[in-house]
Amino acid sequence: MDKNEASDGAEKREGKYWIGFDLGGTKIQCTLFDNELKQVDFKRRRTKSELGEKGLLERIASTIERLLDDCDISKKQLAGIGIGCPGPVEWEKGIVRVAVNLGWENVDVADFLKKRFDCDVEVLNDVDAGVYGEYVAGAAKGSRTAVGIFPGTGIGGGCVYAGEIMRGKVLTCMEIGHAKINGSSRLGGSGMRGTLETEASRLSVASEISKLAYRGEAPYLLEHSGTDIREIRSKAISEAIENGDKEVKRVLEEACEMIGYAVANTVLMICPDVVVLGGGLVEAMPDLFEEMVGKVARKHVFECYRDEFKVKIAKLGDDAGTVGAASWVKRMAEK
Amino acid sequence: MDKNEASDGAEKREGKYWIGFDLGGTKIQCTLFDNELKQVDFKRRRTKSELGEKGLLERIASTIERLLDDCDISKKQLAGIGIGCPGPVEWEKGIVRVAVNLGWENVDVADFLKKRFDCDVEVLNDVDAGVYGEYVAGAAKGSRTAVGIFPGTGIGGGCVYAGEIMRGKVLTCMEIGHAKINGSSRLGGSGMRGTLETEASRLSVASEISKLAYRGEAPYLLEHSGTDIREIRSKAISEAIENGDKEVKRVLEEACEMIGYAVANTVLMICPDVVVLGGGLVEAMPDLFEEMVGKVARKHVFECYRDEFKVKIAKLGDDAGTVGAASWVKRMAEK
Repeated sequence: MDKNEASDGAEKREGKYWIGFDLGGTKIQCTLFDNELKQVDFKRRRTKSELGEKGLLERIASTIERLLDDCDISKKQLAGIGIGCPGPVEWEKGIVRVAVNLGWENVDVADFLKKRFDCDVEVLNDVDAGVYGEYVAGAAKGSRTAVGIFPGTGIGGGCVYAGEIMRGKVLTCMEIGHAKINGSSRLGGSGMRGTLETEASRLSVASEISKLAYRGEAPYLLEHSGTDIREIRSKAISEAIENGDKEVKRVLEEACEMIGYAVANTVLMICPDVVVLGGGLVEAMPDLFEEMVGKVARKHVFECYRDEFKVKIAKLGDDAGTVGAASWVKRMAEK
Repeated sequence: MDKNEASDGAEKREGKYWIGFDLGGTKIQCTLFDNELKQVDFKRRRTKSELGEKGLLERIASTIERLLDDCDISKKQLAGIGIGCPGPVEWEKGIVRVAVNLGWENVDVADFLKKRFDCDVEVLNDVDAGVYGEYVAGAAKGSRTAVGIFPGTGIGGGCVYAGEIMRGKVLTCMEIGHAKINGSSRLGGSGMRGTLETEASRLSVASEISKLAYRGEAPYLLEHSGTDIREIRSKAISEAIENGDKEVKRVLEEACEMIGYAVANTVLMICPDVVVLGGGLVEAMPDLFEEMVGKVARKHVFECYRDEFKVKIAKLGDDAGTVGAASWVKRMAEK
């Protein structure tokens, strides 16, 4: 349906609608889908975790209400809300166990949203939602088992196993960023050392590269971004590589190698047929990641697994989480 | 039913029967179960992989035939055969892709057994069968997700996820022994370095300990077992520890630490509620493994996962594989 038509109020929308909500540490994306899961409209806002637990929950609800209002959809037409949250989630109850970036502990998101909207609610881990999105409509479409690895400030992971989001008895899982990958003494935000994210996240890469800039070994980066790791973003890194900073490329290749080991371990353990790489760092340098991670992973699996998986780049970008969350709540509601 | 009664031939057995077969690299166990999966009788033999592919398949078949014959069961009463084989298996087809210890490559075990016995056949990875056995009748009974880690010459792994044996699109998986765990340059039988089994298998432990014996740092072990790693078996290791060889204990604790890291990674990725440790090395020192592996694993998971899993010692011993294989084929046949 044409958006302007609805906004004019000339014609009331009919039928069922679904919300896919992606609650990130820094930004919110709230997307309205029709009953065929076609995107109707969306809102993006800053997260504002400084509002505190109640304030942020209220912000989530008001974002949904405003989007419904903008699109002339009544609350009664809302069949369900799927929301991806950063951190381990008690999936049956819909409680976010801990979300460091939001300052949340044991927040009952499902209860709050059900009371406010009187519809089906599914609370997912945000990366699980993203991987499920790639599974239903992106790079992992048609796979039996898909694992997603998304390097950002940390490294998020998710897994769809035989059509279901992989989960523990109580909590969501696939926290691959916190898995130990080597004997390095680098300490991660999780309090653990030598994990995938202490070795290969954007934050870890930026920190390595800042030293290169300081020592004059990354002249382009030094000139354009300086030595403050807050300024060494994914785009700055890929531009430095394109403009001849060879040492920067080496650091990225080493990060790809670490992710390659993690993919190899995942193949040996779960044997996904598709591994999806996504997130800002990957999107800035898709060819480097796809080629190098695949090469290292194939080299480090037991021989007969070598041709049993493909490494692919995510397709849905920022929409993966909302598509996944909405698809999941619709699927669970219709079960 | 009383075994002697049947052997006398005084009374023919009635009903359906199931075979659980454990094809190991060195020994075979073939167990007959009644339709309630109660054990009727079993045979143990050496594997004799030197017979070659055809010779070994024939040995498998004749072992089953002799056991049926001993128990006065006709071939027609045999409803199904579940067989665990060492190595990755194409599970839908029942083909063993590769079994290094048997010298096998692409052996169609299902086809051979179906033609010979005209019954349902399920070919499983041997460790998957063992973990499924522990899941239906042993240490992991009642769990949602169970992962088994069995240190032997190598380190085998298996996973039952939400009641199903975890599998890839084509191959069986959970080859946790080949997963990279650190930056060690030790080379494993798989051609990979720094894997769980290069760091913590019985073979790896025996090799470390042989150096201690050589240097006089493990006097009890040196006196009773010498420095030949073929003589440094699980029992010899546990006896040396009991008799005061402190350095031997240190090596074992280091192996437990490595397995603890592997358990932590597994919890972060799959979140099993039960992790079962088994195999000769564990059975010789169950308390050491249960306590140390659990302690290290709990320390190396993201905090909220700390109380979401238990490390337990396997209960079924050598019967886990046959119980699991028979239970699985019966379950699949009745689906």
